[in-house]
Amino acid sequence: MSEFNLIQKYFTRPTRHTDLGVGDDAALVKVAEGMQLVVSTDMSVAGTHFFHDAAPYNIGWKSLAVNVSDMAAIGAQAKWATLAISLPEVNENWLAEFSHGFFACADAFNIDLIGGDTTRGPLNISVTIMGEVPTGKALRRGGAQVGDDIWVSGQIGSAALGLAHLQNKTLQGKNELENDALQASIHELCRPVPRANLGLALRDVATSCIDISDGLLADLGHILKASDCGATIDLEKIPCIDYLKNDLKNPQFQELLLAGGDDYELCFTAPPSKRDEIELLSKQQNILLTRIANTRSPTSRMAIGLESGGPEVMYQNQPLSLLKQGFDHFA
Amino acid sequence: MSEFNLIQKYFTRPTRHTDLGVGDDAALVKVAEGMQLVVSTDMSVAGTHFFHDAAPYNIGWKSLAVNVSDMAAIGAQAKWATLAISLPEVNENWLAEFSHGFFACADAFNIDLIGGDTTRGPLNISVTIMGEVPTGKALRRGGAQVGDDIWVSGQIGSAALGLAHLQNKTLQGKNELENDALQASIHELCRPVPRANLGLALRDVATSCIDISDGLLADLGHILKASDCGATIDLEKIPCIDYLKNDLKNPQFQELLLAGGDDYELCFTAPPSKRDEIELLSKQQNILLTRIANTRSPTSRMAIGLESGGPEVMYQNQPLSLLKQGFDHFA
Repeated sequence: MSEFNLIQKYFTRPTRHTDLGVGDDAALVKVAEGMQLVVSTDMSVAGTHFFHDAAPYNIGWKSLAVNVSDMAAIGAQAKWATLAISLPEVNENWLAEFSHGFFACADAFNIDLIGGDTTRGPLNISVTIMGEVPTGKALRRGGAQVGDDIWVSGQIGSAALGLAHLQNKTLQGKNELENDALQASIHELCRPVPRANLGLALRDVATSCIDISDGLLADLGHILKASDCGATIDLEKIPCIDYLKNDLKNPQFQELLLAGGDDYELCFTAPPSKRDEIELLSKQQNILLTRIANTRSPTSRMAIGLESGGPEVMYQNQPLSLLKQGFDHFA
Repeated sequence: MSEFNLIQKYFTRPTRHTDLGVGDDAALVKVAEGMQLVVSTDMSVAGTHFFHDAAPYNIGWKSLAVNVSDMAAIGAQAKWATLAISLPEVNENWLAEFSHGFFACADAFNIDLIGGDTTRGPLNISVTIMGEVPTGKALRRGGAQVGDDIWVSGQIGSAALGLAHLQNKTLQGKNELENDALQASIHELCRPVPRANLGLALRDVATSCIDISDGLLADLGHILKASDCGATIDLEKIPCIDYLKNDLKNPQFQELLLAGGDDYELCFTAPPSKRDEIELLSKQQNILLTRIANTRSPTSRMAIGLESGGPEVMYQNQPLSLLKQGFDHFA
């Protein structure tokens, strides 16, 4: 199978809002008037982001979903994506499943695949996503004000729990974890559902927003640093499944919750005056939204010697010291 | 060095035409009114597109340059790029040189790096480039008309000659090849200069255009197939350095010239009425532009049993049969 036939068979689909899609030197699209173009890119590498034997459908889904999550985090409507993929060999079963997963995500979020590149090499998937946001309406990391509420969507730590299980890590009290909950955690890891509609709804509500990909502390830390704020989180306020909630003194569970990453939930700030609006949004979209803390002046953080830029965490009225703040490919 | 410091140190530069660059969940840019957004992506993999020990400056330059070439081929003004890179380890010397090469190309073509991703894994560089073209003015592959002139810019085959040398292939009559010419060929391979201004100038001149990345026959074949045309090329009309020109009966040289790829010259079609304009353009931009053939009806191609879609090649009035039409990662 030639490169050109491969692209034709697995990566060419009708488009919805594209002037010229896959097949020429470049793609052509029209950005609507009054809109900024929003661009983000995420690379997924075998052995780093997923296991070599991971289900190709899930690899396809997730490689696009993590990019949709970036669009959500900035309040943009995702519309177009390019896919560059490096493959060690042409395995048609693998490609068929991968492209099914990729296009399932594309269809779920109304995204056109408009171009790409296929090449030979170690398995690597690089997706660039493009979308639109009304000019000036993007949710930046640096917009939080002192005194804002800090919110998170969904439950945190499940994807990291699923990963710990797949890595055969010893999980304390694992017998108490029902099989269903464990499967759900693995599903959270492998098939994340980005909070696309929530991101759009937050445009006129939130003062800052980020998606939790590297871990709650690291990602909230980005907001705090960019906004020149501090925060103190009570560990017990972080929404999570009962299995984690029931043993929060366990350092392993603390790390899953605070530094695990791969949640693809949104962490955002909003003034307290927006609480009713946010609770209504939670009902309308049927998404758990939890207030976990408030931003404060950064001076108190510096005074207690926390230099990481991340938030302080309290557990049973004592500051918690964590070895790891979040995922870093090179630290 | 953390991932965040690495991005800050090597991949964050002031931007020229960008509302929000590197450092948030996504970048924000404004596409001018009356313009289509043009998007293309190319992935470069160690061991496939460049040698593992290639000069990192050249890898950086070329990873962006090949994308600029795609913009030129469609007549777009390149403006923005994202860079996703997977690295086996953090080697600061390598990164410093790579980023110098990347930004040298970005500066040469007035392109802002607006976002990206850095991750751990086998060396892989994925660039997505974005630009603008006045709505409806893009140079498509499918616009050639029967009777159009077929033009190529520059000289063909030099990059492939440089590659053959670096691969230690036996080159017939290599002693006749001056050291300077050999070094120039290697330079063509490692530091290609995309025909950005030529692409822009061809918007109102050419009927179709492509950049020669996979080899002249394969790339011209894409134009012919998309335009439903045929063509017969006289091998001796293809512009190339004297070393190749002097021994065109050599099948190795024929392959370098016709199927070598990596030239990043433009191949385009235009009606004969545009000859004066194109020759003036050649003088103005100081770029060799050569008419190598004319398009014709595709029926004659089918009649002689050529099913590849590529053009027919004649040498000394005999049709030439080639084993290889161009580079294909999976054929």
